[in-house]
Formats: sequence, structure tokens, C-alpha cells
Amino acid sequence: MSTLTATYQLYGKSGSFEQKAEGIALGLTIGSWTNLPLLEQEQLKHHKGNVVSIKEYEENPHPLKPGLIKAEVAIAYPSANFSADLPAILTTVFGKLSLDGEVKLLDLEFSDDLLKHFPGPRFGIEEIRHTLGVTDRPLLMSIFKGVIGRDLEYLSTQLRHQALGGVDLVKDDEILFDNPLTPFEKRITTGKEVLQQVFEETGHRTLYAVNLSGRTSELRGKAKKARELGADALLFNVHAYGLDVMQELVEDEDIALPLMAHPAFSGAFTSSSFYGLATSLALGKLTRYAGADFSLFPSPYGSVALEKASALSLGEELTKENSLKRSFPVPSAGIHPGLVPLLMADYGIDSVINAGGGVHGHPAGAVGGGQAFRQAIDAVLQGETLQNASKQHEQLQTALELWGSKN
Amino acid sequence: MSTLTATYQLYGKSGSFEQKAEGIALGLTIGSWTNLPLLEQEQLKHHKGNVVSIKEYEENPHPLKPGLIKAEVAIAYPSANFSADLPAILTTVFGKLSLDGEVKLLDLEFSDDLLKHFPGPRFGIEEIRHTLGVTDRPLLMSIFKGVIGRDLEYLSTQLRHQALGGVDLVKDDEILFDNPLTPFEKRITTGKEVLQQVFEETGHRTLYAVNLSGRTSELRGKAKKARELGADALLFNVHAYGLDVMQELVEDEDIALPLMAHPAFSGAFTSSSFYGLATSLALGKLTRYAGADFSLFPSPYGSVALEKASALSLGEELTKENSLKRSFPVPSAGIHPGLVPLLMADYGIDSVINAGGGVHGHPAGAVGGGQAFRQAIDAVLQGETLQNASKQHEQLQTALELWGSKN
Repeated sequence: MSTLTATYQLYGKSGSFEQKAEGIALGLTIGSWTNLPLLEQEQLKHHKGNVVSIKEYEENPHPLKPGLIKAEVAIAYPSANFSADLPAILTTVFGKLSLDGEVKLLDLEFSDDLLKHFPGPRFGIEEIRHTLGVTDRPLLMSIFKGVIGRDLEYLSTQLRHQALGGVDLVKDDEILFDNPLTPFEKRITTGKEVLQQVFEETGHRTLYAVNLSGRTSELRGKAKKARELGADALLFNVHAYGLDVMQELVEDEDIALPLMAHPAFSGAFTSSSFYGLATSLALGKLTRYAGADFSLFPSPYGSVALEKASALSLGEELTKENSLKRSFPVPSAGIHPGLVPLLMADYGIDSVINAGGGVHGHPAGAVGGGQAFRQAIDAVLQGETLQNASKQHEQLQTALELWGSKN
Repeated sequence: MSTLTATYQLYGKSGSFEQKAEGIALGLTIGSWTNLPLLEQEQLKHHKGNVVSIKEYEENPHPLKPGLIKAEVAIAYPSANFSADLPAILTTVFGKLSLDGEVKLLDLEFSDDLLKHFPGPRFGIEEIRHTLGVTDRPLLMSIFKGVIGRDLEYLSTQLRHQALGGVDLVKDDEILFDNPLTPFEKRITTGKEVLQQVFEETGHRTLYAVNLSGRTSELRGKAKKARELGADALLFNVHAYGLDVMQELVEDEDIALPLMAHPAFSGAFTSSSFYGLATSLALGKLTRYAGADFSLFPSPYGSVALEKASALSLGEELTKENSLKRSFPVPSAGIHPGLVPLLMADYGIDSVINAGGGVHGHPAGAVGGGQAFRQAIDAVLQGETLQNASKQHEQLQTALELWGSKN
């Protein structure tokens, strides 16, 4: 039978979880069981939720409520109960349950025939590498900074400098929406010209991810227009819209552009230890299933930081082998060249090193900032320490002096 | 200048909030200020976020972190920075900030010209009262129960019994999606026949809210079909889709059906005291602005319960006077007739009393359950105690014996 198995974190008294779990399994499916006539039990058994496992963690007491301990409870929901879309799935496994006290949804395990309904990334790590011609190192990305209220010329200059520094990808600031100074379509066409110019000058190819924004029903039209205009990729604030909205963008054959999922707003439902969704599920598994080629998330190292175990399992969800293509993990926020060894140790070469201030804040500007990152990446690939490499590389040296290093 | 003012709850050391607030106001708008040349300051001043107020609550220490206190910080964002849609708004005011430690978004204050972009309820309390012909009491709603895996005949019987009990509205179970046993369109047409039959027998009109579900881009087509088939209202799991998806359903002239917003999944981002959104903002203000005619939420009294102050301010957001129509507050979960006096004291007559088990679990079945609620409502309107009224009303008496009362 095709099922979806949800794992929840609960708090309660030791020994209380079986009843609690049974209550969830029934309450979110057929409602009642033991008091049903046998004939009805027979009819309903394929719709009944079933408790799969209960693990009590005696060593994890509730931090504020003495006598309560943590447990992880897994419940299997028959997929006959819902349509194969994320809104139905999230409503089934965490609809009213999300409102029912301290319950956190840690994971969802899709059976193979359920997973078939989800596209995964259209391009994935391999095809994006192929487009860029970069196969043997992490990609380097940078972000426009301070572009609200600025004009196209300002953006163009910033884009040019970032590309000249050797970054592979540049993304819009996620808070830059369609606006009269730098309209969506103009950003695409102007950005294209700038990047083509840099390519002709240097032979280096940089892709630009433009922020797809506006009303939900307009997104597909705007994305198609972006493709017609030659856009390289789309940035999308998926959690301010809904995962299914992104999935439909990915599934649309007429869009067919790499999609970069931004974590904006996701902290609202991933930050608490007691409520909401595990980060690895929200920004990892579900973001991949719904089709993002890239998933951005706070690295464990910056000012805005994820707990390291969460950040690692998130990366694992994006890249582990299954029937879907793999998504690029993009650990972000507060990244500078001195963190490159740590990021590469955590995420390997199949990841994107993404910086804002760490590129633009370089004393030699965004050009020097990008170069410093590329030098740091090369050093790690060659097994060199950054300190050692910095003796030959001025930009890296300047960066390490400014921001330090951890390797 | 048109602005959106966001109020946040933060924790920190006394005296630390001004710098923190300035950091947010700049970080979520133009990025930097003091180091800009005067000419650029002049160009950017209409895009700069501004700290409006800071209130420290010395009497509210952090429950786990000694030395930290609570503060509420209000920041005004120029609406020139974003398009007038909720995804852009939420990304601006709580995009990356949602990921930045213990920050909760308490409220958003829209300036009048920004508010104009939001439809509010298409019908609102007055028009729905008019449709039902009920002007002088709270509406009574009940919910299908245990309908997963059941056939149309089972649903029809349940619907008939609920209507015969005198409820004004019946809503689908939010976890009932389109399915072969009880397909969406059949539920509408069959439900209509059942309710017409009851109307002919009793003169009582009951409306049925069918669960609108499926892929995002299919919703509008399905909703239009629902209207063609004569559906009364739509139930919608808005928080599993996105607020803007609901807003577009409301704005579509070809749909034009009352819309009932279900709180499924919303607990993921409203339950924590430290993270996410205030319930009154998410299920109150934004749900009304985006156009729900009804907003369901956990009452302060059931098993799944909201804190009373939150539940009351939520109701206030749905019904206070502004340029939009008013939405019905629907306090839900664990409601039985004995709670009617409390609910009416909290929400007045412009609310919906909504019960599942409190209707179906009545010893005289759903018919008796509905009757008991109507009797309780009448008693409160007449200034009678439930105990007193129950002497004349058998169904109410039975309900009070089973569930008790609080008045």
C-alpha cells in the first residue's frame, strides 16, 4: 500500500506516547476505530493511519516542563486519503495537528509511487554544471547588495564587478521586486548584455538569477517571458508563496529555467525547537521534491546561523541518491573566504559557496572579493591551507586579514 | 508617503534595541546609510526603513536567557520598496529576518493606499447573514466527521442530520480531498439536493462549504465549476497554499463564492512564543485582508486551544471597522453547547459557533446535537442560564449532562 510516513517530535510523560500517537493516527484519518462494527473496520482499514514506531528519549527532558521527555513518533498515512500534492499532504499530516501544542514535524517518507508525483529539479547539479562548464569545484555565487532604490546602471556595474571576480552565479536580492527603476524584464536583458560582455572579455561565464515576483497567477507568464528574454535562472521566494506554486513553475515545460529557492519567511515555521517543520524537511527534502535546482539556507557559520546538525542533514536531503535529480545546497549568510575550507568539508564540491558582504565588502571591491573566494576554493582543492595560498594571492590575503579564517 | 509598519517582538539586553532596530530597518531596505554620500542619501531616503518606536518590557524577562528582556519594535517600510502583494510584503518585513534568531512578527499596519490593493471579504458578515436570513444571532456550523473512506450515501446522511438539527453551515472535513468515493463535484450536487430536501421539509436553510483542493493552478477552474454547480461556499486550507492564492480566488469575479479559511498548518508558524507570526495577524488581519469571509481558529476553550488574549484580538482583527468588509470569527475545536455563553461573551453575535464532536457526539445524534446548540444560543440571547433553559429543552439538558457547562 502506498503510504506517507510522518515523523513527529512530541513531549510528554514517559509511557504516554502510544496513546497520543494512536490518537493522531486516527484523528488525522478515519476518526475512530475500536468502536466501529467489524464490517466498517474492513471497509476503512485501507484508510486508517498506523503508528509505525515510538522512540522515547529519556535523556531529553523538556527544558521547561519537569517530568516531560522528548519522543519521536512515526505514523504511516495511506496515500489513498489525499491527492498527491503538497497542500493536501501538509494538511493531512500537519493540518490541525500543527495547532495542537508542542508537535514538530521532523520528516516525511514518501513511498516510491507517491514520490513519482513530484518532479524534483528539472536540471539538477549535473546539468547546471554542464551549462557552466564547471565540473570539479563548488560553484561560487554572489548577491546584489543595496540595490533598493538604485537604477539599472548601478545594478549593471555591480553585476559586472561580480562577474569579473569570477563568480559563477549572481542572484538578485530577494527583496528586489518588480519596480520602475529596475523592472524585471530590463534586469534580464541588461544583465544578459553585461554578462555577455564579461564573457567576451574574459571567457568566464556567469549566470544571473532574476527574482520572480508578483501575484501568484502572474508568475508563470512572467517566467515564460523571462525565458523568451534569455534569462539564465529564476530566484523564487517559495515560502512566501507556497511549495506547490514553485512545483508548478518547475513542471511547466515552457518555463524550463533553473530555479533557486530562497529561504525567506521559512524561519517562521522552522526556527522553533518545539513547533513547525524541521529545516531539513522544509528547505531540504520538500524543496528538492518540489523542484528547486538550488536551495539557499543559513550556513552554520554566519550571523544568521543554523545549528550544524540541521544544516548538514539539510544538505544531505538535497543531494542523496533517489529517483530525483540532486539540488545544489547553498549555505549562505555571513560567508567570507576564510570559511571556504569549512563549507567544503561540510558540503563537498557539489555545493554553492554564496556570499554577499564577503564579496562586496572586500577592500578591492567585488572583483577582488570574487577572486579571493576563487583562490580559497582552489587552495582547498589542492590541499593547501588558506594561509599558505594567501602568500601567492593578494586578494585572498586581504580577505583573511579582514575576516580571519577557520581551517 | 505610503508605508507598511511592522511590529516585532525581540529579546535582548535593555538598551540594545535601538541598534538592533536600526539594523533591521536598514538591512531590509537600502542596506546602509551613514556611510553613504549625501547625494545618495537624498536619492535613497524614500526607500529607507525607519524605526518608529521601541518599547522595552523590563517586567518580561526571557524565560530561559537571564539578562534578556522583551521589547516591541515598530519599523516603517516605504511601500515603494515592494509590489502590493502579500508574498512581497512578507518577504520584505519577515523574509531573512524570520531566520535571524528570536524574532516574532506581531502586527502589520497598512497605510490606506496600500490597503486599497487588498480585497477583503467579497461578502462579509452582512451579506452572508442576508443569504441565510439570520440577522440576530451567531451562526451555527458543524463539520463532517469521520468521512475518510466513506461513500456519498454516508456523507449525505450525515449532512441531512446536521441540517435537520438546525445548523446554518456545514463544512467539509479539511482532510477530505478530491477522491473517487466522494468526488468534489458530486459532493456539491448531492449536498445541494440533500439541503434542498431539508429546506422543503423544514423551511430551514443550511449552506455547505465544500473543500477546494488540488494543485494551485487548478483551483480557480474547480472553484468556477463549483459555482456553476450551485455550491454555497468554499472551504480552503489557505496556509497550506499561500495567502495570495486565496486572495486571487476571492478577486475572481467568476468565482464569487463565500470563502472559509481553515487554519490547517498555520500552527507551524503561529504557535511559538518566540518565532513566526502572531495568530491575530496570520489568522485575523491577513486572512481578512486576503478576503476570507470566515476565519476558523482554535477557541480558548477546547482541547486544541489558543491563549485567550490571542483568540480575542484575532476576533477583533476580523471584525473591527475599516474600509474592508468584516469576516466571521469561527472559534473552533472542542466546542459543546455548554461553551456557548462564553463564546457569545467573547465574540458577540457576529460570530460562528462551530462544532464537530459537540454535534455528532450528542446522545441523540447530530440532529439532537444541532438542536442543543440552537437552544443554548436562544437561551443566551434571552438572558437565561443554560441550566434554566435546559429544563424546557431535552437536547440541551442531555448535552449539559454529557459535557457540562461554563456560564
